[in-house]
Amino acid sequence: MARLDETASGVFTIAVTPFLPDGALDLDSIDRMVDFYVEKGASGLTILGIMGEAGKLSFEESATVIRRVVARTALPVVVGVSAPGLAQIASLAALAMDAGAAGVMVAPPWTLKTDGQIVSYYHDIAGALGETPFVLQDFPLVTNVVVPVGAILQIVKDCPTCVMLKHEDWPGLDKITALRNASDAGARRISILCGNGGLFLPEEMRRGADGAMTGFAYPEMMAQVVAAHEAGESDRAHDLFDAYLPIVRYESQPGLGLAVRKHILAARGAIAHDTVRKPGNPLSAASLADLALLTGRLDRRLAELG
Amino acid sequence: MARLDETASGVFTIAVTPFLPDGALDLDSIDRMVDFYVEKGASGLTILGIMGEAGKLSFEESATVIRRVVARTALPVVVGVSAPGLAQIASLAALAMDAGAAGVMVAPPWTLKTDGQIVSYYHDIAGALGETPFVLQDFPLVTNVVVPVGAILQIVKDCPTCVMLKHEDWPGLDKITALRNASDAGARRISILCGNGGLFLPEEMRRGADGAMTGFAYPEMMAQVVAAHEAGESDRAHDLFDAYLPIVRYESQPGLGLAVRKHILAARGAIAHDTVRKPGNPLSAASLADLALLTGRLDRRLAELG
Amino acid sequence: MARLDETASGVFTIAVTPFLPDGALDLDSIDRMVDFYVEKGASGLTILGIMGEAGKLSFEESATVIRRVVARTALPVVVGVSAPGLAQIASLAALAMDAGAAGVMVAPPWTLKTDGQIVSYYHDIAGALGETPFVLQDFPLVTNVVVPVGAILQIVKDCPTCVMLKHEDWPGLDKITALRNASDAGARRISILCGNGGLFLPEEMRRGADGAMTGFAYPEMMAQVVAAHEAGESDRAHDLFDAYLPIVRYESQPGLGLAVRKHILAARGAIAHDTVRKPGNPLSAASLADLALLTGRLDRRLAELG
Amino acid sequence: MARLDETASGVFTIAVTPFLPDGALDLDSIDRMVDFYVEKGASGLTILGIMGEAGKLSFEESATVIRRVVARTALPVVVGVSAPGLAQIASLAALAMDAGAAGVMVAPPWTLKTDGQIVSYYHDIAGALGETPFVLQDFPLVTNVVVPVGAILQIVKDCPTCVMLKHEDWPGLDKITALRNASDAGARRISILCGNGGLFLPEEMRRGADGAMTGFAYPEMMAQVVAAHEAGESDRAHDLFDAYLPIVRYESQPGLGLAVRKHILAARGAIAHDTVRKPGNPLSAASLADLALLTGRLDRRLAELG
Repeated sequence: MARLDETASGVFTIAVTPFLPDGALDLDSIDRMVDFYVEKGASGLTILGIMGEAGKLSFEESATVIRRVVARTALPVVVGVSAPGLAQIASLAALAMDAGAAGVMVAPPWTLKTDGQIVSYYHDIAGALGETPFVLQDFPLVTNVVVPVGAILQIVKDCPTCVMLKHEDWPGLDKITALRNASDAGARRISILCGNGGLFLPEEMRRGADGAMTGFAYPEMMAQVVAAHEAGESDRAHDLFDAYLPIVRYESQPGLGLAVRKHILAARGAIAHDTVRKPGNPLSAASLADLALLTGRLDRRLAELG
Repeated sequence: MARLDETASGVFTIAVTPFLPDGALDLDSIDRMVDFYVEKGASGLTILGIMGEAGKLSFEESATVIRRVVARTALPVVVGVSAPGLAQIASLAALAMDAGAAGVMVAPPWTLKTDGQIVSYYHDIAGALGETPFVLQDFPLVTNVVVPVGAILQIVKDCPTCVMLKHEDWPGLDKITALRNASDAGARRISILCGNGGLFLPEEMRRGADGAMTGFAYPEMMAQVVAAHEAGESDRAHDLFDAYLPIVRYESQPGLGLAVRKHILAARGAIAHDTVRKPGNPLSAASLADLALLTGRLDRRLAELG
Repeated sequence: MARLDETASGVFTIAVTPFLPDGALDLDSIDRMVDFYVEKGASGLTILGIMGEAGKLSFEESATVIRRVVARTALPVVVGVSAPGLAQIASLAALAMDAGAAGVMVAPPWTLKTDGQIVSYYHDIAGALGETPFVLQDFPLVTNVVVPVGAILQIVKDCPTCVMLKHEDWPGLDKITALRNASDAGARRISILCGNGGLFLPEEMRRGADGAMTGFAYPEMMAQVVAAHEAGESDRAHDLFDAYLPIVRYESQPGLGLAVRKHILAARGAIAHDTVRKPGNPLSAASLADLALLTGRLDRRLAELG
Repeated sequence: MARLDETASGVFTIAVTPFLPDGALDLDSIDRMVDFYVEKGASGLTILGIMGEAGKLSFEESATVIRRVVARTALPVVVGVSAPGLAQIASLAALAMDAGAAGVMVAPPWTLKTDGQIVSYYHDIAGALGETPFVLQDFPLVTNVVVPVGAILQIVKDCPTCVMLKHEDWPGLDKITALRNASDAGARRISILCGNGGLFLPEEMRRGADGAMTGFAYPEMMAQVVAAHEAGESDRAHDLFDAYLPIVRYESQPGLGLAVRKHILAARGAIAHDTVRKPGNPLSAASLADLALLTGRLDRRLAELG
């Protein structure tokens, strides 16, 4: 399979990991989910990310998920390999690339504090990964690590295998602008795909992002917004985005968001069950009622927009 | 002035602190802003909160702001008095109550870790404040302190002067439900006003909140949503909310949000200047362009809604 | 092999993981190190802890270390199995127990905030581990999780397989007292072995600890202090302790301490190389000079003490 | 009074703030304590630091303490002015300098994350302080802010009024070495006084520190260690240090250390009461017994050393 490179764009959906009601891996749902994402306009898939409950899988289960997903699609697959140490990261990355993945994604561990520690960590990562292309995941809300623009540019300069930024700093619009100004001024231009559940997607595209890498349960919205932006139809992009925004917002609740996402995906038939592995938060009856109201309103609004 | 009590409801706007372009307090704008908030439907005001740049004022400036605001309005005024130590909190609270404030608000210091430490801290607060009613500000995203339901209920039980929760845990909808279940089962029922810029206001009202305490630059939206909810017009509440949601979302960006809010308030004539004191983030040209687009779209959407 | 239970006492040395200069596992040094610890008075061993660089090993390497250590000694071996998720923890624990370990150790993940979250986490751990006895590692300086006495007692009450506390809260002397008061009053009494490099060992013993679980490079000091305490020779315990204290202190430097420990162990012949895996901090020339001075002074002081 | 400059050296004792048993300021004890510190060899005093319970004083109380201390001694007095905002810092600093202080000390607020944010914060500080010389307090264990060497050097370069580093990073010996290497290579050489209760004082002096700025309850130990170092008597320095080390260590317990320090100071007659303001931790009976044992052993060891 082709390796990930700086030209990646569009929507890389962050895939959930489907489980059976007893918590075991649901392999059939993996296939169904991959087909669903492809059908809804994904240009790539990212698996075993934070929202893929990667930390809750054993090494063997991670291997099973990687192989199943890669076997099901010709789209590029990025594999989250964040782990406490380099040895674990390197061995999971090797397994992923052998299975046919396009690249891997690495978030900084929460213990990093200074700019120098962050840059040094990614030097070590690049060394441990060898030729494998990697995505730098910049997600301070979850990792507790703030990665300044200067550190990203240093990593991009020092590590040719860093080909993409998964951007979910928040607020982060001016960070995209700063990175694009830097590449306009001669820095290597890497792909920037944005996360945060798509909460700022229209604005991110205007700042120079290449698309989204996030798992909002309606990937077609993201694909359509990206397409409308590329076509110069800004109002169309915003109209679509605004229709889904109440649900984007609801899904963006930390901790709870994954259960929301899985619930919607199950309701849409993309996976069989909305099971979240422990430790995790099932949805309360009141939250389910919220979602029923919000999805009903979405249908009506989409009908209005035609 | 009447003291704050458990029956408080509606919209308590978190007031900004207006500055002149050179950073000095803008007293005329304080008056104008208070009038604006009242006109847009506020049922109370909260000053010197985090978004009021309280930490950037000297003690004398804080005193000036309190006296100016309280003199301008008959609405109840809550004064944020969070400080590193009890002595500072007690002396600012005494000044505020002497000036005619209705109560004070206290957020937990970031050094608190365990449930017991949190409860003990509010015991100390209640002791230091004497008869002054206080609002417990629950805002983990900024304070780094997670306050569990059990700790809130313990504080409510032990401290009769704790009359309100400023709720901005996130996600926090089920927390409201749990607190209301507890008061239905016999715990003292305190007022719950919600923050987070209003990002979940319709859902929060359905869970049993009494209104909003936040500073979204269009307070009329919050007043109308609360009113529609009280009138049982859920769809109307959501329609209004959804129209403003793209801006609510944009204003909710941590760090940047205050500059957005001040920019809109200045554009609406509520204050003369959008100056943010150092350290603070002015808006970039691209962010200003985002806002121009979003406010234009808001006007059109409101026209559609009639 | 016998399972770990509440009666465990003495010195469980936290073993380092020896590496060759190129970073590969040094299996011969594992044997030598185990012999060294036994010879110096260890009553048990703890492997794959934080100071065992557990996070830097691949799953296969962890398995190799476990099997090699367990095969070399009849002493009880506790295996650190902390990992981001339950599935990983359960699978490593199963491997360890199958290999003949006496129990496992689990530290709380840094994302836990409230008392309830901590208790709930260990409920999940106990469920995932089944009959395997486990050690609760309470080490806020590294984990960022403060575990109050009440939460520990709740876990002890709810989870019969929690048989030991690795105590390294700091300051934590009154915590030991509170736990012993609780067991005197009827709570199940678990073993308490203390960490923090031994920095408070004499005082901890007086508070009711059962010994030490830490990796200070001179385990004989800890064994002798524990023995002197048991014999009621308090002054003797302190004299011995004080002689080593300048080095205990030097080794207690976060981040740097592991390199200090490995350097001394290598100098003492317990392991062949002082290699620390990346990311890690080698000792500077000035630090090596500090150690030469301190170990020279130790030799003279021990000679004085006779 | 002379202003603090880069040549400051020796022992600047961090003064406690003495309280009466009811929590009010104990002004007589302030005088007695200042005399005690001078008599025991202090070359300067630092007041209103973290261990001076600065956060627990009202603005008026802080002013009283500053004036009382400065009036009592001709030694240079450094005043801690850390506060949530620049306006508060500037107004307290102005008051301190008007009263005759030699300079002020500022720790970074816990919200700073990146190198750039830290440097920018001290730019703002230097601007707000004008000509007032200031001490950069580098104390990650308490502030949660890690300040890399590069950021310190940038601040030293950009801000001529930054004349001293209060060094209490931990581990931080190699940081002193790096800073001294930089000043040997041409960077402006500022004073480095070390904190951490003196726990690494002999080693810090060898790395190029100019002395200590900390509040260990036996300031004469620090003065003697610094003097022995200056006289080239390394063994004498270590012998003295080692005698006190068990108490240095006991006093270094976070949270508890202040109560230990005040207890010893009261026992030595330096202050009348060992009162710690709320929120604070009084010493347990078991801790008092520990201290009785340790101080008894100290007396015997000092007698042995002659």
